[in-house]
Amino acid sequence: MNENDITVNLASTSKIDSVDFENLIFGTVFTDHMLICDYKQGVWEKPVIKPYEPFLIDPSAKVFHYGQAIFEGMKAYKDEHDDVWLFRPDQNFERFNKSAVRLAMPEVPESVFMDGLKKLLQIEKAWVKTGKGNSLYIRPFMIATGPGVVAAPANFYRFMIILSPAKSYYSGEVKVIIAEHYSRAANGGIGAAKAAGNYSAQFYPTKLANEMGYQQIIWTDDATHTKLEEAGTMNVFFRINDTLYTAPTSERILDGVTRKSLIDMAKREGINVEVRSVLVDELIQAAEDGSLKEIFGAGTAAVVNPIVGFSYKEKYYELPKLENPIALQLKEKLNNIQYKLAEDTFGWTVKV
Amino acid sequence: MNENDITVNLASTSKIDSVDFENLIFGTVFTDHMLICDYKQGVWEKPVIKPYEPFLIDPSAKVFHYGQAIFEGMKAYKDEHDDVWLFRPDQNFERFNKSAVRLAMPEVPESVFMDGLKKLLQIEKAWVKTGKGNSLYIRPFMIATGPGVVAAPANFYRFMIILSPAKSYYSGEVKVIIAEHYSRAANGGIGAAKAAGNYSAQFYPTKLANEMGYQQIIWTDDATHTKLEEAGTMNVFFRINDTLYTAPTSERILDGVTRKSLIDMAKREGINVEVRSVLVDELIQAAEDGSLKEIFGAGTAAVVNPIVGFSYKEKYYELPKLENPIALQLKEKLNNIQYKLAEDTFGWTVKV
Ligand SMILES: Cc1ncc(COP(=O)(O)O)c(C=O)c1O
Ligand SMILES: Cc1ncc(COP(=O)(O)O)c(C=O)c1O
Repeated sequence: MNENDITVNLASTSKIDSVDFENLIFGTVFTDHMLICDYKQGVWEKPVIKPYEPFLIDPSAKVFHYGQAIFEGMKAYKDEHDDVWLFRPDQNFERFNKSAVRLAMPEVPESVFMDGLKKLLQIEKAWVKTGKGNSLYIRPFMIATGPGVVAAPANFYRFMIILSPAKSYYSGEVKVIIAEHYSRAANGGIGAAKAAGNYSAQFYPTKLANEMGYQQIIWTDDATHTKLEEAGTMNVFFRINDTLYTAPTSERILDGVTRKSLIDMAKREGINVEVRSVLVDELIQAAEDGSLKEIFGAGTAAVVNPIVGFSYKEKYYELPKLENPIALQLKEKLNNIQYKLAEDTFGWTVKV
Repeated sequence: MNENDITVNLASTSKIDSVDFENLIFGTVFTDHMLICDYKQGVWEKPVIKPYEPFLIDPSAKVFHYGQAIFEGMKAYKDEHDDVWLFRPDQNFERFNKSAVRLAMPEVPESVFMDGLKKLLQIEKAWVKTGKGNSLYIRPFMIATGPGVVAAPANFYRFMIILSPAKSYYSGEVKVIIAEHYSRAANGGIGAAKAAGNYSAQFYPTKLANEMGYQQIIWTDDATHTKLEEAGTMNVFFRINDTLYTAPTSERILDGVTRKSLIDMAKREGINVEVRSVLVDELIQAAEDGSLKEIFGAGTAAVVNPIVGFSYKEKYYELPKLENPIALQLKEKLNNIQYKLAEDTFGWTVKV
């Protein structure tokens, strides 16, 4: 298939002029069009690009009852020549299909995911604004549309891509709490998949954390709560003295594109990076002896999200305020690659 | 609220005559009407009963992206006087709202859940067939309809009830495999909630088990895989000599209505019941020395699901074929209460 095999029904008018691009709230505004591709009993149908709008679905669709749903999160950036770029889209595509397998859903063909996305982005090019910090957030997702209230995989699925313009993500001063009771993933579970059900599972513990004044939770392994795993819906890095630590990916930890890109970049910068489990005890020790310099989350939405302090067993540990934290150095360098302001020596960027 | 506060729009014709009640496939046929009740920014609106049909929903609805969805499963039975009965509906209502809290969703008022259900059942009375084994499966569920691709609870929700006529559930000879790697719930996770995401997480491991010739998985604790927890989407009982064992409910185990009813009934029958964790090692030991007599799943759909054998570490253990297994004795007694063929000395049945 190539992109000519996509049916395109354009909207008669664009809502772009009604959007206040200076005051976007993340994930709330959508562009004029969406991509839909249905899977019926073993076959992917022809993708359709059409106006963004609600769609009809049966009350017994398995996505509602059994959470058979997966998604990805990626971004498109515009350079100074008005060209639109994706960042390592192959990684999101691969991860999407890994999630599909884990949720017993059909894999989406590359032609549908990639050609569909590129075609949609060409149509919505005006929604990608130039200027560092501006981007178009891309949400590919797949839901089980097949009917039936019996707990087994569906026969019908729908793959969709929707797009949401975003400003640079500033989440204020982020304080986190280390999970002592709740957890986000089980051994032998679906934590490594971008499965819908993983996220709503975090809402209640996060609400409790918010009520205590913390914006996010640093998740620990569910069996012992001794190993630090992820921060909210991001991977997490710790800087102790001049070494960066981050947990290895596992069944419980998402293989984040930002995480692995930061690791590669940091190594090339000559920064010492160790991929290994960090224990809560180590972190407390390092916070107490002053060797803990930084903690930051890593993910597509914020790229890097510096953390100013953390709480554990009702004690709050404040991180030092550094002149030139590694977190922000790496963010700057990664953003420069994404916006084509620096040479992409890794070959990560893909022109739309 | 009482049931007069429900808006009712009846279907112009019924499809009941086109349904082959002798050859129903579980969960695939739905009655003429459904109940819908929307929640908008803090307020439950008036419930509506209307023809069963697909509905419109935004592509960014949080149910699709974050699996914010819960459900219940219960049944209506008809006695010989054409009266319709529910079995311990208070338990399902309570559990539904516990699930809601864990998923950071609004609790549904009793008037909406109970009066709504009763009104809907009155309308669909003809769909509940007399005769043991026949029932109307009831699926109350709630989904996050609020839009937005940011991982946080929605502002809008939809509560619905749909109904599906069912024959007695016979699943053939059920062989199970004991989980050595995969698992269904984490410590500090959502295993005790009837959250949609728990179920699709089981699809892939169950598919692998099916390919190996096993119909279901007996789940073990995810940390050590040494404790026996649930069977498929049922609670599980083991009979060793003349004692029944079943795991205590926990964060990882659903508090099943059938499980607790069987415990109460068995105790009243003078059967020894111990609620405690059963170890895989114990089970193997008991299978080897011949003291393991029965294993059965317990849940609303099948009531009791006898298991004929299990596999562990590539070895298959066959269970003895008993004359009068406790599983079937208890099933018979529970069914007699549900169909009003025996006196309900527990006060479990509720007339619609
Ligand atoms: C649980 C979780 N961890 C980590 C990440 C970061 O992954 P990525 O860098 O690919 O966005 C995400 C997604 O954003 C996530 O959902
Ligand atoms: C995971 C799980 N365990 C056990 C059960 C049995 O619960 P109940 O007896 O209330 O149907 C169910 C639901 O049917 C379930 O989903």
